[in-house]
Amino acid sequence: MASEFHHRRKVGFIDTDRGGLIHYTNYFRYFEEAEVAFVGSLGLAPEDDPFRASSLPRISVSAEFLKPVGFGDELDVHIWVAAKGRSSITFKASFGCNGEEVARASVKAVCAEKAADGTIRSRPLPEALDRALEVRASD
Amino acid sequence: MASEFHHRRKVGFIDTDRGGLIHYTNYFRYFEEAEVAFVGSLGLAPEDDPFRASSLPRISVSAEFLKPVGFGDELDVHIWVAAKGRSSITFKASFGCNGEEVARASVKAVCAEKAADGTIRSRPLPEALDRALEVRASD
Amino acid sequence: MASEFHHRRKVGFIDTDRGGLIHYTNYFRYFEEAEVAFVGSLGLAPEDDPFRASSLPRISVSAEFLKPVGFGDELDVHIWVAAKGRSSITFKASFGCNGEEVARASVKAVCAEKAADGTIRSRPLPEALDRALEVRASD
Amino acid sequence: MASEFHHRRKVGFIDTDRGGLIHYTNYFRYFEEAEVAFVGSLGLAPEDDPFRASSLPRISVSAEFLKPVGFGDELDVHIWVAAKGRSSITFKASFGCNGEEVARASVKAVCAEKAADGTIRSRPLPEALDRALEVRASD
Repeated sequence: MASEFHHRRKVGFIDTDRGGLIHYTNYFRYFEEAEVAFVGSLGLAPEDDPFRASSLPRISVSAEFLKPVGFGDELDVHIWVAAKGRSSITFKASFGCNGEEVARASVKAVCAEKAADGTIRSRPLPEALDRALEVRASD
Repeated sequence: MASEFHHRRKVGFIDTDRGGLIHYTNYFRYFEEAEVAFVGSLGLAPEDDPFRASSLPRISVSAEFLKPVGFGDELDVHIWVAAKGRSSITFKASFGCNGEEVARASVKAVCAEKAADGTIRSRPLPEALDRALEVRASD
Repeated sequence: MASEFHHRRKVGFIDTDRGGLIHYTNYFRYFEEAEVAFVGSLGLAPEDDPFRASSLPRISVSAEFLKPVGFGDELDVHIWVAAKGRSSITFKASFGCNGEEVARASVKAVCAEKAADGTIRSRPLPEALDRALEVRASD
Repeated sequence: MASEFHHRRKVGFIDTDRGGLIHYTNYFRYFEEAEVAFVGSLGLAPEDDPFRASSLPRISVSAEFLKPVGFGDELDVHIWVAAKGRSSITFKASFGCNGEEVARASVKAVCAEKAADGTIRSRPLPEALDRALEVRASD
């Protein structure tokens, strides 16, 4: 069982804007990379990895940006499981740079599938995923 | 004085992901387009428009995604001023599609400038911007 | 029958980079918007619009960037059909800004579908699309 | 002196589109990552690295997409110097996946600086960069 994961990522040139720093939406890009790498690290069968098998739409997100971060800065994305529901997972992450926290974010995702009539509806987390991910003790 | 604005935007093909629907980060893309169009509609001098003159880093954001939205769907981004501080503005937006609310979001931005030593620091809102934007009565 | 189309688009803040100007990949973003709007203007049934019904992977692209373009600049994307094959369409576009050509690009796309075994293969252009799009006389 | 470089990169979920595969613009995203990593590997002073010091606008690009590539596929981006001019560098890259070439691309960039009047103009490659990068024998 795993409750947290570290993902390292350099800020790309394309991820900056004319203000000279990272465009804030890219924190969510890096957050997703960390989610994918975290779930990928669990050794699940493809059908139990919602990024591969079904889909994992997000239903709410939030973030705070604490310090300016620019091109080439190396981020340590520390991601953990903050909550689990029957169909949902809430990931939180703290973004560190040179030992300082520069941003933090939260993403609540819900496991979903396409019904026969084309509508998207939530479904329970795959059992193997549910077993493999544990809520971190200190949120 | 203005307190709200409407921006229409179709969901782009590039803005979808393999789940078949919009990738959620693009709500923030469209939110920014609405911010830029809203501020642009105020008829400010370039030096009073923080997107043009200085920079407007975001310090916190949040969003809820209520209904699935896909390629080609036309969004009505209704954006308004939810709060103002000495240096900051909080915009909120409701995203409508076919008469239904499909998402809502909030973005707090702070007016910033580069100091002589290269650091970024907050500065008061340009007076003309402050005068032109009014907090909406019902947040 | 239509052989060309005009699409107007302002350069977004998010579409710039720390060099202060548009990031070049966004010309392809705007090119795609123009493709989608062009095909959308033809009044086809959904099953004849490859962006909606099947998929339209690109097999080759090229672009030249002639003049610097920045945030808020308004582009006139003039797009036309440069060639058609049994399964493929080549679109070309000239990007104008304030009456000057600032970039030009070419995109060759091929109509594709997923075979029963999951592989992607090319298929003939939908007849209605083929009839509606005409190669522009002067390429 | 270096004439080529390898950069590994997994295709992100956000980098796909509703067609189910990578959106082609992301090949340019990965190409840029490879450019930045290649130049970064040369051990230049910050003022000699055009991504850090000045800017490196692209003046022409092209690409061919040979095989479908999807979420999670690992790409080997093999990048090399195909040509050098007084102010310009042409990088080419071959994208491999599971031992097969899936795409190739070419990007011509020009070293630029902002003149006192605000216009962008080309400038010679920094000497240290010019010395460090060598055109690959077989283009």
